[in-house]
Amino acid sequence: MSANIFGERFQLMTFGESHGPALGAVIDGCPAGVFFDTELLKKNLDRRRPGQSGLTTSRSELDQAEVLSGIFEGKTLGTPIAVIVRNQDARSQDYAAIKTAPRAGHADDVWKEKFGHSDPRGGGRSSGRETLSRVIGGSFAEMYLSQKHPSLQVVGWTAQVGSIELSSADRDQIQGFDRDKIDSYAARFPSEKSALAEKAILAAKEAGNSLGGVAEIRVTGVPAGLGQPVFRKLKADLAAAMMSVGATSAVEIGAGIEVSSRTGQDFHGGPANVYGGIRGGISTGEDVFLRVHFKPTSSILDVAKKGRHDPFIVTRAIPVLEAMAWLVLADHSLWKLSDKV
Amino acid sequence: MSANIFGERFQLMTFGESHGPALGAVIDGCPAGVFFDTELLKKNLDRRRPGQSGLTTSRSELDQAEVLSGIFEGKTLGTPIAVIVRNQDARSQDYAAIKTAPRAGHADDVWKEKFGHSDPRGGGRSSGRETLSRVIGGSFAEMYLSQKHPSLQVVGWTAQVGSIELSSADRDQIQGFDRDKIDSYAARFPSEKSALAEKAILAAKEAGNSLGGVAEIRVTGVPAGLGQPVFRKLKADLAAAMMSVGATSAVEIGAGIEVSSRTGQDFHGGPANVYGGIRGGISTGEDVFLRVHFKPTSSILDVAKKGRHDPFIVTRAIPVLEAMAWLVLADHSLWKLSDKV
Amino acid sequence: MSANIFGERFQLMTFGESHGPALGAVIDGCPAGVFFDTELLKKNLDRRRPGQSGLTTSRSELDQAEVLSGIFEGKTLGTPIAVIVRNQDARSQDYAAIKTAPRAGHADDVWKEKFGHSDPRGGGRSSGRETLSRVIGGSFAEMYLSQKHPSLQVVGWTAQVGSIELSSADRDQIQGFDRDKIDSYAARFPSEKSALAEKAILAAKEAGNSLGGVAEIRVTGVPAGLGQPVFRKLKADLAAAMMSVGATSAVEIGAGIEVSSRTGQDFHGGPANVYGGIRGGISTGEDVFLRVHFKPTSSILDVAKKGRHDPFIVTRAIPVLEAMAWLVLADHSLWKLSDKV
Amino acid sequence: MSANIFGERFQLMTFGESHGPALGAVIDGCPAGVFFDTELLKKNLDRRRPGQSGLTTSRSELDQAEVLSGIFEGKTLGTPIAVIVRNQDARSQDYAAIKTAPRAGHADDVWKEKFGHSDPRGGGRSSGRETLSRVIGGSFAEMYLSQKHPSLQVVGWTAQVGSIELSSADRDQIQGFDRDKIDSYAARFPSEKSALAEKAILAAKEAGNSLGGVAEIRVTGVPAGLGQPVFRKLKADLAAAMMSVGATSAVEIGAGIEVSSRTGQDFHGGPANVYGGIRGGISTGEDVFLRVHFKPTSSILDVAKKGRHDPFIVTRAIPVLEAMAWLVLADHSLWKLSDKV
Repeated sequence: MSANIFGERFQLMTFGESHGPALGAVIDGCPAGVFFDTELLKKNLDRRRPGQSGLTTSRSELDQAEVLSGIFEGKTLGTPIAVIVRNQDARSQDYAAIKTAPRAGHADDVWKEKFGHSDPRGGGRSSGRETLSRVIGGSFAEMYLSQKHPSLQVVGWTAQVGSIELSSADRDQIQGFDRDKIDSYAARFPSEKSALAEKAILAAKEAGNSLGGVAEIRVTGVPAGLGQPVFRKLKADLAAAMMSVGATSAVEIGAGIEVSSRTGQDFHGGPANVYGGIRGGISTGEDVFLRVHFKPTSSILDVAKKGRHDPFIVTRAIPVLEAMAWLVLADHSLWKLSDKV
Repeated sequence: MSANIFGERFQLMTFGESHGPALGAVIDGCPAGVFFDTELLKKNLDRRRPGQSGLTTSRSELDQAEVLSGIFEGKTLGTPIAVIVRNQDARSQDYAAIKTAPRAGHADDVWKEKFGHSDPRGGGRSSGRETLSRVIGGSFAEMYLSQKHPSLQVVGWTAQVGSIELSSADRDQIQGFDRDKIDSYAARFPSEKSALAEKAILAAKEAGNSLGGVAEIRVTGVPAGLGQPVFRKLKADLAAAMMSVGATSAVEIGAGIEVSSRTGQDFHGGPANVYGGIRGGISTGEDVFLRVHFKPTSSILDVAKKGRHDPFIVTRAIPVLEAMAWLVLADHSLWKLSDKV
Repeated sequence: MSANIFGERFQLMTFGESHGPALGAVIDGCPAGVFFDTELLKKNLDRRRPGQSGLTTSRSELDQAEVLSGIFEGKTLGTPIAVIVRNQDARSQDYAAIKTAPRAGHADDVWKEKFGHSDPRGGGRSSGRETLSRVIGGSFAEMYLSQKHPSLQVVGWTAQVGSIELSSADRDQIQGFDRDKIDSYAARFPSEKSALAEKAILAAKEAGNSLGGVAEIRVTGVPAGLGQPVFRKLKADLAAAMMSVGATSAVEIGAGIEVSSRTGQDFHGGPANVYGGIRGGISTGEDVFLRVHFKPTSSILDVAKKGRHDPFIVTRAIPVLEAMAWLVLADHSLWKLSDKV
Repeated sequence: MSANIFGERFQLMTFGESHGPALGAVIDGCPAGVFFDTELLKKNLDRRRPGQSGLTTSRSELDQAEVLSGIFEGKTLGTPIAVIVRNQDARSQDYAAIKTAPRAGHADDVWKEKFGHSDPRGGGRSSGRETLSRVIGGSFAEMYLSQKHPSLQVVGWTAQVGSIELSSADRDQIQGFDRDKIDSYAARFPSEKSALAEKAILAAKEAGNSLGGVAEIRVTGVPAGLGQPVFRKLKADLAAAMMSVGATSAVEIGAGIEVSSRTGQDFHGGPANVYGGIRGGISTGEDVFLRVHFKPTSSILDVAKKGRHDPFIVTRAIPVLEAMAWLVLADHSLWKLSDKV
């Protein structure tokens, strides 16, 4: 396998198997002089961590990050920033069963064909635990951008839990929510129906079932001019970033799937930001809005995990999607520096 | 601007402004010994060309491709393949008006901020004419893959014209359609409602209006093992490829947006290919299926184009989306060579 | 073959076989707003062109460059700049003999093994004619840098013709020479022994022999801070750039091979610029100095070329080496933009 | 800083400051199924380690490598291989003095201008300790290539210590030497004059002086067809690899600087491997031979290091140069897979 590097100018390389000694991230290309915000890193890792409530899997490791390089006296040196997290709860014995019986919905058999080895879970890289490295990388992207564009914000939430969706009233309210406010809702579903959603998730867990869902990401305070006009349109990079996260199956940008049944006079005429803050592949300065669809998790098919499975993964995916958005924005922010002589 | 290169191993570089002397494509990384199929290249370019019917814009240049390098005695040399197409119908005078008045829905103002110049149409790179270079690149990817995986096929069609959608009966029928069959339908909408769709498009044109729509792409005969498990999942690369085409706003893979309201027991239990031929980011050998949503074209807002505007761009985008899919598949086909020792 | 792209931020892609319809260059990543200097491009191409005197091969095509994209109203658009040069004198019939008998010293047999085809001259990419594309790319790098760093200059000359070397007096004089002055000397050998060198070259030609030599490149007015400290040290990139030119076998930077027999007290103690303007891989602002060693050309072994062979290729390589230096400097100039927050 | 990644297909990313918690290497792109040779890794790290004799600096850390990912049941998984080495002997207090007074010959001032921070030693990335990560990466390249091309060998030695050079008799003898044999000589100088060289080095140390030198690298059993013909010629990549190591100032390939004073009839006529195993940028299958020139170390100028300085760094650089050669060969070995359809 190669392709464990994300980004061209602000680059994240990730490594680590879920059953190995550690996972990690190396950030290359982060400019020198960025203030290191240890609290932000910790908070983002905690937000991703499973086992925070009865709603998610019970894996309860602490995910303590150790910075090995790139930071000196509270600032980035301009050198690669390496961060590792030990696997305290690796339990590779759990995978013994899997070695003989590939799990439906997982990629075990595909990996076997591709890489020729019988290691469970594709070397542990197809596990959700890999996303920890993304959150580390995204946190540094956030530190860099927050210093350069203080008003830039990326906030994600759950917009759908199985068949339960946000109402219009919910949507109006969310405009003013920050991440802390979102986190205060069960399943990060910021709705009057939050309790209902929670109940549905717990019922699915008990029944050995799982639920699909939708995450939404809103980026505000976006600097204009991010994105390159042909292959690296901002929307193309954001779509790839979101679809690189496991269990995703669709991504919408701006007005998304709504646009296909509209007419031009109706669509382009109004004052609303129907373009999702991106025109010609380049940010306009308006808000960027994304919707990401997730399959119901396939862990229900894993007999070995019975009772410990995660019935709804969107909640936990939100900090990961936010991280991916930060990484794309940081990459294009550096890119923009060479647009003009 | 940079980022006019697509792919890492099978690479396409594109150049050319719609009002300049020529557009072109350079393919680097195509292995030596691939049979050059001049008819295929010509046919794909013709399929992309506007002005083929009353349904599209009347621009009627011939798009004659000239191969400048990389081919010798009917085969690729392994050297870069450069192909150019002269702009016979550049008419840069048309753009005079635009220089003073940015067009709504276009990216002119965004470009001005980003690149600091007042050239119309962002240097002509944000024009639909840029896609010609993609079709050239995709044709070579198709030649390479057709030789290596003869059963691999990429077929696209229009699935929605404004509010008119394919019926279930239509969908059943399409299973056996190839590109020629699709092309025989008005607007590439392979449906009993094809005439209706055509009428809607013409009505929109007369009214100075435009229609959104949906394209679908089916890849059959896919070799297993394409895709890299983390950031370069096959679905991530396909999503980026599709979203790098102008006027797109959403992309669905496999069961797409349907998945978010499903339960795991329902979704994973059945025999159907709900994963869209990709698991863990890697192709399984099953069909890969994509849906791409398009905005109604903004050319209606362009006073200078009144009467000459394209009311429905999905039809013409289909060969471009097919080309992008071929390019992604070729890139990953080369990548797969180094998976195992 | 892939790897026809040079640079990461200021990128040159080259294409074209010496016996095909055209050669070309596409520059991606050149910022918008750079003044296009058509005279500079023309002059650099003329300086590279063979057949300018009895000293070089008699191939006498005109090398007329046509700009296909990227320039509008005298400035770069920020879009890819494509330039092609038609092969007016391709004479692929010359290669008929070679198809059966690989030429000693050439790479024909190596290519055959690698790419599996019997095309002469490795698809024509191992010919010296390929360097034309480099000179095009280097010219745009020069335009960009000249606008940003007006005092930056790259000047190359011949320092050795077989066994004839520059004297100390010659070296003193060269300090003030620009490219025009260098060009006024036979074989670009700016020496009182210039006539002697010319005689040696002509004698070699008559005898069906060839001569090795040394080129020197001096870069003045270098901005400080170019180069990245680990793998992309400025000296590493310059060395690769020089060694990517055919017939080179050694490259020296700064004090070069002199350093290995020196002691530290002697070497580091003095006021002279012994580091060649690069410390820790990064430019200091002092002059950068390079020496590049060339083999005697192997064309003497080519029976088909008897009498038309080039007995001394260093003269003609100088504009190519200069171009490569400009390209490296432009790449690192863009890189430097993201060093600090 | 970016550019801490080496290679395109077999990629090494390095991180770590000499005064920070750890150094490390992440290898991405190593195929699955390569046997992990822990002894080889250990041995190569030991060979690089300073303090092995009175000839080098007395820093005596153990350089214990910990593998964090990418290996399972004795084989590579195809996932990124991360290896870290803790800095047991960081002593950042040593750098206190340097913070105020930049050291001549070092890059401290250059770094300050470039990255804007006052951290000693450019964030510790310009220290020789950074090469540890290269040796880790090179060891995995060696494991991969040894499995694929068992006869491939890379052996380096010291060819010159100040003014003491290998004799012809020495050179004859070296033909049969492997790394163990080389290591048995003081300063890795495999000569009858070895004792003399050792004495010169110790004398330099006592006198607070240092000596320049030359390393030679011989690659045998090279598979034919490595290298790409234009910008990524094997010789260009090798030159960059060697020149990316600190204190280098010149690199010669094959007959090196000898060629410039030769005539073609003399040079090309004989049976000897004058091309250094590379023609047209591509390996021929013959031995590849490199000479790398090193400056006398500038650590003599560092008052804080008085008495602990390294008077001759070539000995210790040899495992690093070998590692860089392995990395280049592994990269091109993977590249070659996509040459032909």
